[in-house]
Amino acid sequence: MDYETLQTALANGVMTVTLNRPDKLNAFSTTMSRELIDFFQRVNSMDEVRAIVVTGAGRAFCAGADISGGTGAFQVWNDGNKPQKREASDSITLAIFNCLKPIVAAINGAAVGVGITMCLPMDIRMMSTTARIGFVFNKRGMAMEAGSSWFLPRLVGMQQAQEWVMTAELFGADEALKGGLVRSVHEPDELLPAAQALAAKFAAATSSAVAAAVNRRLMWSMWGAQDPLDAVTLDLQCVGHLAAGADAQEGIKSFFEKRAPDFPLKPSKDMPPFGPWAK
Amino acid sequence: MDYETLQTALANGVMTVTLNRPDKLNAFSTTMSRELIDFFQRVNSMDEVRAIVVTGAGRAFCAGADISGGTGAFQVWNDGNKPQKREASDSITLAIFNCLKPIVAAINGAAVGVGITMCLPMDIRMMSTTARIGFVFNKRGMAMEAGSSWFLPRLVGMQQAQEWVMTAELFGADEALKGGLVRSVHEPDELLPAAQALAAKFAAATSSAVAAAVNRRLMWSMWGAQDPLDAVTLDLQCVGHLAAGADAQEGIKSFFEKRAPDFPLKPSKDMPPFGPWAK
Amino acid sequence: MDYETLQTALANGVMTVTLNRPDKLNAFSTTMSRELIDFFQRVNSMDEVRAIVVTGAGRAFCAGADISGGTGAFQVWNDGNKPQKREASDSITLAIFNCLKPIVAAINGAAVGVGITMCLPMDIRMMSTTARIGFVFNKRGMAMEAGSSWFLPRLVGMQQAQEWVMTAELFGADEALKGGLVRSVHEPDELLPAAQALAAKFAAATSSAVAAAVNRRLMWSMWGAQDPLDAVTLDLQCVGHLAAGADAQEGIKSFFEKRAPDFPLKPSKDMPPFGPWAK
Repeated sequence: MDYETLQTALANGVMTVTLNRPDKLNAFSTTMSRELIDFFQRVNSMDEVRAIVVTGAGRAFCAGADISGGTGAFQVWNDGNKPQKREASDSITLAIFNCLKPIVAAINGAAVGVGITMCLPMDIRMMSTTARIGFVFNKRGMAMEAGSSWFLPRLVGMQQAQEWVMTAELFGADEALKGGLVRSVHEPDELLPAAQALAAKFAAATSSAVAAAVNRRLMWSMWGAQDPLDAVTLDLQCVGHLAAGADAQEGIKSFFEKRAPDFPLKPSKDMPPFGPWAK
Repeated sequence: MDYETLQTALANGVMTVTLNRPDKLNAFSTTMSRELIDFFQRVNSMDEVRAIVVTGAGRAFCAGADISGGTGAFQVWNDGNKPQKREASDSITLAIFNCLKPIVAAINGAAVGVGITMCLPMDIRMMSTTARIGFVFNKRGMAMEAGSSWFLPRLVGMQQAQEWVMTAELFGADEALKGGLVRSVHEPDELLPAAQALAAKFAAATSSAVAAAVNRRLMWSMWGAQDPLDAVTLDLQCVGHLAAGADAQEGIKSFFEKRAPDFPLKPSKDMPPFGPWAK
Repeated sequence: MDYETLQTALANGVMTVTLNRPDKLNAFSTTMSRELIDFFQRVNSMDEVRAIVVTGAGRAFCAGADISGGTGAFQVWNDGNKPQKREASDSITLAIFNCLKPIVAAINGAAVGVGITMCLPMDIRMMSTTARIGFVFNKRGMAMEAGSSWFLPRLVGMQQAQEWVMTAELFGADEALKGGLVRSVHEPDELLPAAQALAAKFAAATSSAVAAAVNRRLMWSMWGAQDPLDAVTLDLQCVGHLAAGADAQEGIKSFFEKRAPDFPLKPSKDMPPFGPWAK
């Protein structure tokens, strides 16, 4: 995969994508935004990618929006082309939310502003003991972006969310772990291997890639649903569809034969023809 | 109550229902599903039942769907009658969600697949030190069912929910407690008494059965509501209705007379004529 | 500010409002309700108020609804005027929810019934080691009010919410902290200073008052939203609007000049002309 601001590497079904502007502390530019959206959409058709790890090159994860050109970057796309108004559909948040593969953030260093809000729709956040996180919007006179007003209170509770946003202070790994923002904290040189090891579990051959995609999307889609009947109705359809499919048959067969399953279905072509992924 | 797959026993206002196919590790069959739906609907008109404890006979709680006949059971009802397509309304989840009595799961042993997803719309989960839980869907090529995509991320947070579903591994009581899935962990022979003792508190004569039913349902109904105005509007109606009723009058009278209240209202006939329970 | 049941004092941008009926344990009367609604609406146009602390005079925070006149107070406004049916719009909950300033509850003593439910839409709850909290509705034959069915399960999880409401028992600071209801616990004479110190951080001159108001409201508004696209769409509008405004320009300028920002915008006149605060 050929990107200007990202590096990618695939191993054991896990695609590691590295934000790669280390001299700029991986500041989030319009190019990086376009490339991340492209990345999270393209992996959906790459069956060899079963899980994703996101990390940063150098000492930062992502120090926030690249404001070297002023605040214009918040309002328009301007990456060498004619400036163009941003639309909600150009959203890294929604590209991550809609991804068919589970995503682990390995927060290796400073994650500030969009550097941390982009991690909220990822499934898992792991953090280095030396990293710092900040929801610094109030200190910049800015609104919290990337849908973070939807994600943050759901992830850590409203009380913690308001405290972090209202103080706008940087905080470290202990506070992030205690507040429930990150799953676990690791020594700097153990972070990426630990994130890749967890992602490799998600990518295990004994796990159905289609079931994983369906279940990841079901949970994210139903997190805001008003009525559990919505979930009961949709998952009954999914259960019916998957139960008639080759993976469930292999799942049961291998269970009775006391052997590891070998699942044939692929997300690129075997997702149910209904549901949020079919829109 | 006469069931093929369930045993029931009433004491101190607490109905204990035991999943009772111990030779099958209490695997969830279509008969068990129909009987559980019937049970959670019938108790609504049994005023002598103030709270419910659900547990399993033998060494398992419920080892999951009974797949001894293949995957057909996921798609159709087939319990001796003509097979019939499952409908969302035939949902044990919604029967539990809509129940007028608080429900405590006493997870005495393995709770896997539907064995654990059926516990999610229960109010409280308590667990034996020796029990194991697994959201194993990805390893079977199946979708997570019973509305669990709605309940699990709300109960334990999205990060923990995705990790359990994406690894699809079994986990023990320490992890379940740390993750917030279960309220407390108990030695095997202390689990059921502890669950019954908590349920007996819910069933105390000093507590209004109608208020308990209204408040249980208000919280479950409003968990997915978009706007707190929905709750403010409905609870103002409920407050007005209950305040004019015999239980609130007795509540205040007994408070001023410094004696235990003796509440006359019964859920079987005295629920407010509006609200989600009236649908 | 001149109220019969409230005392107010402003220092360092923090308005401390004290429930002031100590001989009645600050019981919630219709007068107190009207005055609190008025207070939380008026502060929106007082730019000198950047954050709010709510506490109680004497040994209680608020012992619940004033039921000295029976249950009529639950149904009608009756504070010397002609009794008048309560409407959802007369809601202290919504006045707090819609407030433009962050709010810290300093729970100095008993907070029972509406005494605790009024704290749920506040941003932060801090508690004295000697205070007690009770969701006692079932023991009074009453419905849980003030939209608490919407707030409580979201704040502390459904399992904890149901246990507190179904037992209807009083509980202390350790349990409130463990259950996630309160942020922190303090010695009685250290509680109010600690709450005011946290509120003063929220009120820091280095923080944009308009950004704080926008971000507080974004999170509360989006907590119930069905789809993250709602948040992405609204926050993109807010980002665009604020980025073009004087606070964001000053935020970036001061950042590059390595000095503290001096934000000119005021919530009384500079809120974006769209969004939930503009309704």
